[in-house]
Amino acid sequence: MRQATTILSLRTEGPGLVEVTQGVADWIAETGIGEGLLTALCRHTSASLMINENAAPAVKRDMVRWLDAMAPQGSHYEHDDEGPDDMPAHLKSALTGANLSVPVAGGRMLLGTWQGLYLVEHRTRPHTREVALHLIGE
Amino acid sequence: MRQATTILSLRTEGPGLVEVTQGVADWIAETGIGEGLLTALCRHTSASLMINENAAPAVKRDMVRWLDAMAPQGSHYEHDDEGPDDMPAHLKSALTGANLSVPVAGGRMLLGTWQGLYLVEHRTRPHTREVALHLIGE
Amino acid sequence: MRQATTILSLRTEGPGLVEVTQGVADWIAETGIGEGLLTALCRHTSASLMINENAAPAVKRDMVRWLDAMAPQGSHYEHDDEGPDDMPAHLKSALTGANLSVPVAGGRMLLGTWQGLYLVEHRTRPHTREVALHLIGE
Repeated sequence: MRQATTILSLRTEGPGLVEVTQGVADWIAETGIGEGLLTALCRHTSASLMINENAAPAVKRDMVRWLDAMAPQGSHYEHDDEGPDDMPAHLKSALTGANLSVPVAGGRMLLGTWQGLYLVEHRTRPHTREVALHLIGE
Repeated sequence: MRQATTILSLRTEGPGLVEVTQGVADWIAETGIGEGLLTALCRHTSASLMINENAAPAVKRDMVRWLDAMAPQGSHYEHDDEGPDDMPAHLKSALTGANLSVPVAGGRMLLGTWQGLYLVEHRTRPHTREVALHLIGE
Repeated sequence: MRQATTILSLRTEGPGLVEVTQGVADWIAETGIGEGLLTALCRHTSASLMINENAAPAVKRDMVRWLDAMAPQGSHYEHDDEGPDDMPAHLKSALTGANLSVPVAGGRMLLGTWQGLYLVEHRTRPHTREVALHLIGE
C-alpha cells in the first residue's frame, strides 16, 4: 500500500465549470496506483468542486445561472471586502463543497458514464486555482 | 492494510430517499475490515447520496419537497433533453453531493445514532442506480 | 501505513460556525502521521461540517443568515417533532454536508491559506456535538 499527493493548478476565466477529469486521470496513471481512493480538495473558499454531467454544455450554463439564483449578489451581505461577488462566492462554495472522493479500480476512477469532475469558479474575474490531489492504494 | 471495492445496485421508484445503511454495513462485515475508511460514490448525475435522519419518515418527505423548491421544474432551463425533471435532477445532485466518507471502527461505521446513508432519486421515473463502495483499513 | 481514529467533542451556543481547524491539526500532530488523508464526519443530522473563509467574522454571520433563507422556519414542514428549528436543521445539514476529506502532507492539512474547518450548529439551543476523525497514512 502506498500513496501520492500533488497540486493541480488551473486557470479560470470567470464564473463557470472547468472540467478536470482528464487532468486527474492522467495523474492517477502517472502514480502507477491502480486500486485505491482518490481525494480532491479545492484550496479556495470562492471556488469549489463538483461532479456533474459531462455531455451537454447547456448543463454547465444552467448550473451557473442556478448558483447565481441561490446566492445572488446584492446589498444584503455584511461581508463585501472584495466586491459584490465576494460573499456569493463563499456561499456557492459552501453549497457545492470543496472536496470529492472517488474510488479507483483497474487504474480508472469509478465514475459513471456521464460523470465528470469540475472545478467551479465563483468569482467574476479570472483566477489561478489549486486543487490538491491525494491517492492511496496499490 | 488492505482494501475492497464493490458496486451496490439499487432500484428506485421515483423521487425519494432510499436507505442504504444496512446494505453498506453488510458489505463492510463481509470484507472483514474492522478499522478503516468507507467511501461511497453515486455513479449518476441525476441521483445523489446524503446522510440524514433515520427515524421519522416525515423527514424524507419534507426533504423531497424542499429539494423541489430549491430546484423547481420550469421553462427557465436551457437543458431539457430528457424532460422537465432533467436539469432539476442535476441541480439537486450538485446540492446534495455524489459522495460520502465514513470512518469505520470495531467493524461498524462511526455514524451517529440518528444517521442513515441514503441514495436520493431525483428523476420522476424509476431507475436502477449504482453506488460504488470502497473500504481501506485492516 | 497505519491509521488513527478519534472523536472530537464540541460545545455549541446556538446557530453558528465553530472553527475546529486547530483541534484537528493538534490531533493530527499527536498521531505522528505526516503524510496521509484526514476524514471528518459530523455525527448528527442537525449540525454539519463546512470548509470556509477563516479571516472575516462577517462571513460566518452572512453564512448563518443565508442558511436561514435557504431553509426558513415555518409551518410548511410535516416534521416538527423537536420544534420549528428541527426540519430546517436537517435541510441545512443536507445542504452543507456531514463529512470532509483533506489530504495531509508534511504533517499539515493541505488547506488553502484562507480555509478553515467548521462545525455548523443549526439548532437554536446549545448542544454538545461529536466529530469523528480518521487519519490514514504514514
